[in-house]
Amino acid sequence: LELAFATAALCHDLGHTAFSHVLEQILLPKSFRTHEDCTLALLEEGEIGSRIREIGCDLDQVVQLLKGVHWNDGLCKLLSGHVDVDRWDYLMRDAASAGVGYGNYDLDWMINSLSLHLDSGRQPRLLLEVQRGLVAVEQFFSARRSMYQQVYYHATVRGAGRLLRAVFERASDPERPEVYKTDAQEGTPECIHSFLQGERPTLEEFLNTDDTTILTAIKRWRVSAKDPVLKYLARCLLERRLYKEIQIGSLDWETASDFVKKETKNALGQRKSEGLPSIDGGNLQDLDYFVLVDDCEFKADASFEGVLFDVGDSAPMTFEDVEKDAGQELVKGRRNFSRKRLFVAPDIASSVKTALREMEKK
Amino acid sequence: LELAFATAALCHDLGHTAFSHVLEQILLPKSFRTHEDCTLALLEEGEIGSRIREIGCDLDQVVQLLKGVHWNDGLCKLLSGHVDVDRWDYLMRDAASAGVGYGNYDLDWMINSLSLHLDSGRQPRLLLEVQRGLVAVEQFFSARRSMYQQVYYHATVRGAGRLLRAVFERASDPERPEVYKTDAQEGTPECIHSFLQGERPTLEEFLNTDDTTILTAIKRWRVSAKDPVLKYLARCLLERRLYKEIQIGSLDWETASDFVKKETKNALGQRKSEGLPSIDGGNLQDLDYFVLVDDCEFKADASFEGVLFDVGDSAPMTFEDVEKDAGQELVKGRRNFSRKRLFVAPDIASSVKTALREMEKK
Amino acid sequence: LELAFATAALCHDLGHTAFSHVLEQILLPKSFRTHEDCTLALLEEGEIGSRIREIGCDLDQVVQLLKGVHWNDGLCKLLSGHVDVDRWDYLMRDAASAGVGYGNYDLDWMINSLSLHLDSGRQPRLLLEVQRGLVAVEQFFSARRSMYQQVYYHATVRGAGRLLRAVFERASDPERPEVYKTDAQEGTPECIHSFLQGERPTLEEFLNTDDTTILTAIKRWRVSAKDPVLKYLARCLLERRLYKEIQIGSLDWETASDFVKKETKNALGQRKSEGLPSIDGGNLQDLDYFVLVDDCEFKADASFEGVLFDVGDSAPMTFEDVEKDAGQELVKGRRNFSRKRLFVAPDIASSVKTALREMEKK
Amino acid sequence: LELAFATAALCHDLGHTAFSHVLEQILLPKSFRTHEDCTLALLEEGEIGSRIREIGCDLDQVVQLLKGVHWNDGLCKLLSGHVDVDRWDYLMRDAASAGVGYGNYDLDWMINSLSLHLDSGRQPRLLLEVQRGLVAVEQFFSARRSMYQQVYYHATVRGAGRLLRAVFERASDPERPEVYKTDAQEGTPECIHSFLQGERPTLEEFLNTDDTTILTAIKRWRVSAKDPVLKYLARCLLERRLYKEIQIGSLDWETASDFVKKETKNALGQRKSEGLPSIDGGNLQDLDYFVLVDDCEFKADASFEGVLFDVGDSAPMTFEDVEKDAGQELVKGRRNFSRKRLFVAPDIASSVKTALREMEKK
Repeated sequence: LELAFATAALCHDLGHTAFSHVLEQILLPKSFRTHEDCTLALLEEGEIGSRIREIGCDLDQVVQLLKGVHWNDGLCKLLSGHVDVDRWDYLMRDAASAGVGYGNYDLDWMINSLSLHLDSGRQPRLLLEVQRGLVAVEQFFSARRSMYQQVYYHATVRGAGRLLRAVFERASDPERPEVYKTDAQEGTPECIHSFLQGERPTLEEFLNTDDTTILTAIKRWRVSAKDPVLKYLARCLLERRLYKEIQIGSLDWETASDFVKKETKNALGQRKSEGLPSIDGGNLQDLDYFVLVDDCEFKADASFEGVLFDVGDSAPMTFEDVEKDAGQELVKGRRNFSRKRLFVAPDIASSVKTALREMEKK
Repeated sequence: LELAFATAALCHDLGHTAFSHVLEQILLPKSFRTHEDCTLALLEEGEIGSRIREIGCDLDQVVQLLKGVHWNDGLCKLLSGHVDVDRWDYLMRDAASAGVGYGNYDLDWMINSLSLHLDSGRQPRLLLEVQRGLVAVEQFFSARRSMYQQVYYHATVRGAGRLLRAVFERASDPERPEVYKTDAQEGTPECIHSFLQGERPTLEEFLNTDDTTILTAIKRWRVSAKDPVLKYLARCLLERRLYKEIQIGSLDWETASDFVKKETKNALGQRKSEGLPSIDGGNLQDLDYFVLVDDCEFKADASFEGVLFDVGDSAPMTFEDVEKDAGQELVKGRRNFSRKRLFVAPDIASSVKTALREMEKK
Repeated sequence: LELAFATAALCHDLGHTAFSHVLEQILLPKSFRTHEDCTLALLEEGEIGSRIREIGCDLDQVVQLLKGVHWNDGLCKLLSGHVDVDRWDYLMRDAASAGVGYGNYDLDWMINSLSLHLDSGRQPRLLLEVQRGLVAVEQFFSARRSMYQQVYYHATVRGAGRLLRAVFERASDPERPEVYKTDAQEGTPECIHSFLQGERPTLEEFLNTDDTTILTAIKRWRVSAKDPVLKYLARCLLERRLYKEIQIGSLDWETASDFVKKETKNALGQRKSEGLPSIDGGNLQDLDYFVLVDDCEFKADASFEGVLFDVGDSAPMTFEDVEKDAGQELVKGRRNFSRKRLFVAPDIASSVKTALREMEKK
Repeated sequence: LELAFATAALCHDLGHTAFSHVLEQILLPKSFRTHEDCTLALLEEGEIGSRIREIGCDLDQVVQLLKGVHWNDGLCKLLSGHVDVDRWDYLMRDAASAGVGYGNYDLDWMINSLSLHLDSGRQPRLLLEVQRGLVAVEQFFSARRSMYQQVYYHATVRGAGRLLRAVFERASDPERPEVYKTDAQEGTPECIHSFLQGERPTLEEFLNTDDTTILTAIKRWRVSAKDPVLKYLARCLLERRLYKEIQIGSLDWETASDFVKKETKNALGQRKSEGLPSIDGGNLQDLDYFVLVDDCEFKADASFEGVLFDVGDSAPMTFEDVEKDAGQELVKGRRNFSRKRLFVAPDIASSVKTALREMEKK
């Protein structure tokens, strides 16, 4: 079981596409909804599965653990839950790399206060010792929210990711002129050809598509795409001229985004910058590649679904019961948030921004 | 000014007594309410003041900064406020020593987001850049609460401190038999003699009283105090047989503490343990040294009194206004708490505890 | 000057090729001997130079600093010398990433003990305060040697790098059959075409060649190179079937490497593994791609060329004089070492190894 | 055995006196040569021994381990040897407290490369895996030397320690006038009375003597010792007016120390400072308390006595054999050093120093 758990932990992200979450909705093979589906498919059908069996590991248990249906529910929660090993790992690593101490947390005390406990039905459940560990878990939750708020959902990060997605949306856009479609494929790795034709990749194509594949295609488009919109997007991305966020200030979203789109259309029509492609100003579909909308959402956790709590004297209880007993919120930081942002092409962002600010004043 | 600020920061705790907060209410010279008063007196009257002047430092400014009335209000807040350098220092140090990562916080980002800002009246005020720094401050507040909850107010720490105070309360108790009073002084350092007679120390006596003084006295009493209560208290402390916390469980405080006192009286009367002193069971004043009551309170901060906030576009505002704008609580962790605890002499704690649990069941 | 120094520090590695040192001898534009030459060319001719001028930075000073001919010799030594900022940076980073504490060192004390000192000719020279700083510098030197010994020159690292270089040596090998030459170019990025024809790249081609370019080419060759040797090398690299080190044990290099080559030839001739390409066993040139020789050398520093030493009482002196005065070696760890290794294709390594061990016994 | 080992590790320093090494030669009970002897006596005769037995720990094994005669020689070496747990602990702790990164080392890799190995006689021996661990051990040795050189043997540290010892040498000096002897005892804790009479303490007195005892005595002498030399020494120590090091420069020790003593005698005779006691200038014995001589010695380790080395292919060997094979020194840093220093009373140090420098020039 230990081997199965370790294997499951190591393999749980196998199904990620190139550039993971950013291109996940675009590059996943048909029939897969998320990268988790893809992970399972790779384990069950791919070479990796047979290799895992070869080392004497029970692949069925690995799959059950990853699906969250294994009889040892505590281990399932530890693989995918509010205090799972994946989050332990990426938060700590990203906080160190980003140089933000507020993304770090006390892993030692958290681990020390977690154990497996047989519940009344003799099922192993994840158990947290409240007195020693709740404070560490609370810090962990805060760290996670801080990382999303300040790092993962930082405007620059999201803007770059959104632009990358826009490149591939354009490269596979069924509505662009036919002549651009065949051109987009040329000189790019074969494994993304079917995707560029508007289809979902096969599992084999998916496996052949890595970050290098994606970058090779963008580099090609940057230099010689016939489609001016695709070329513009690729250039902006590779030359680090990222789309700029336009803050809506006191305006409501509808008003602001309509105005920004109108202004962008004008600016494109007048070719306000030499860098801009000459496109058909009346083509609203094209316009959408110059004003990118980005949505992101953070769901705080503190429900501890499936975790039991050891409060010292009595039998382990659920978090809801612990809170009810205490008569107050025990874990702070349960603050969800979401961000909806407008990113505008760098060559026109500043004029659009000025116009919006003018309009806001009126 | 820089020198004055550094001097103020270094000297702000000069007025602490031996064992700082634990004996503060007992050992401070008359006329001083807190150790801060004493710090000021030492600076203004003591040798330290003249030495500070000798190095070319403006003592008046030092005193103004410590009193919080200096014209540079930003620096005053940095010396004593919700995000002051004293807390930065002790939290980080104590967290490292106690081995609790959850007491650590991101000092670098907090410092980087703080600056001095001239307000409308051209007064320097402490300014926090919200977007980069609020998250670090929030973590700092959480760390502080966690340290109080798990470390500073830990039952063992509070129990040992309470026992230490009890030793000195007894040694200076005006109500104990006269014969014990003269004896208590014998063989102890002179600087605490007036204190043992029930008076407050002079400033000079205060300066002569350090941890060594206190320990020397307790060591003397442990071996040869005629007062059996004092001897018992001193022995318990030095032999690490600390008083034990009796948790009141579901009972209310009044009921529980009355019961515990009654039980303690019985237990003392019956001399349930050989270690116990033979005291007059009917003497309720003595009884109070076998059941110690400890109170502690944590006041969360998040009011940011006197600090301004830079939210990016507009003029700096107060925290209240920032929150009003945001329409939500911005800093979590504003959770006050207090603890009232009963500590019972180690020789009888377990029988008292059993009796209380019995009573609770009924 | 500060700006010029910072710019020089940031730009000193601009001239690195894809996969930096591993492919440096192969991919550098003609007329450049090292990546430092290339850095200077990029600054003097490239767009980056004009951008640097635009921000008000004195490009001439940047170049002088990088060439080590700036009048402020102390800063030159800090950019490129035995205690330079580049080494400070990469050692600390790599040690953290590799998880080896022995690669870390006390940067704070080293910085604190370094300063600029006007020598007798009023030239600024790098000055080290011996009493406080020598011990930190010594640790830094040890850390550097440890990193080379245990990490940078680790057999696996060197083996992978050597294999990568072999791929590109083969892909540009003028002696392989003509038919393979044209094929090797197909489907690879244009910027390496002239390289594949045996020429050195132009500066523009160099700039277009990044890690992605290299990986794209290798991925192409892995799947469909007509040259079986190239295909084999590419497959081994991408499928992580790295060449294995064959330790020569007590044998001398000549004997061992001759024997290993002979055995390899036999093994290839007999096609001992299905994975092996069917090549002309008599072609010794081909054979060289199945037995790779790797050389690496570590030069310890402790000469402190150009650095002055402050020993307290007297005028700053050179390191040689400090040592002469002390009558002993002051900085330990001046231990050079070099490693010459044989790496053999994975499909035959184990049989070759066995044969070598047999031979050794006789 | 695990429990015995842990107990031995925890108890190995029980026998330290107050202020450990500084007063060890003075305060140890008669018949004990070192604090290790004392540790063993406490375990075998004291209360601690019976307590250890009570928790089910084999006291005989504890004692054997501490004496280094246990059959498991590997564990003995781990308790007291060149890479023992005591050094691991204090170096890391002191480096962190002193803020010197060069005193830190890579404990993880060191532990990972150590194991127990059954030698040809089936005795467990400490075994070090050379390839992975030697570099960590080397860093550990360097760290140790650096700590001694820069921290433990720092002039200020040694000067303070030497002064503390001088206080107690004077307080128990059989040659001082009789009248001072009885006075020295007054007002000091009883447990040091026999010591003050020139006897070695009993084990019980030793146990009662802690840092508080020592400080209490010094505080008494500082205020009211009749012996002016004792009073002077105590004042210097408590008022942080430490004796100053006089560097001998290019002079030889004999010449320098004779001169310094002569000058000190003159200075005392002329009472060059008001702080100086009026002593009998002709009394050379008194003079010795105004010029203190301090000796310290560092013995580097790298002999790895009793440790075996795993070099990969062959059987474990001794370090000597490993080096012979390698044909070179493998562990650098085997640099012993010693320091002999003169410390002079603060009130005359500067005039003595000037005179010495004058003399040196001639």
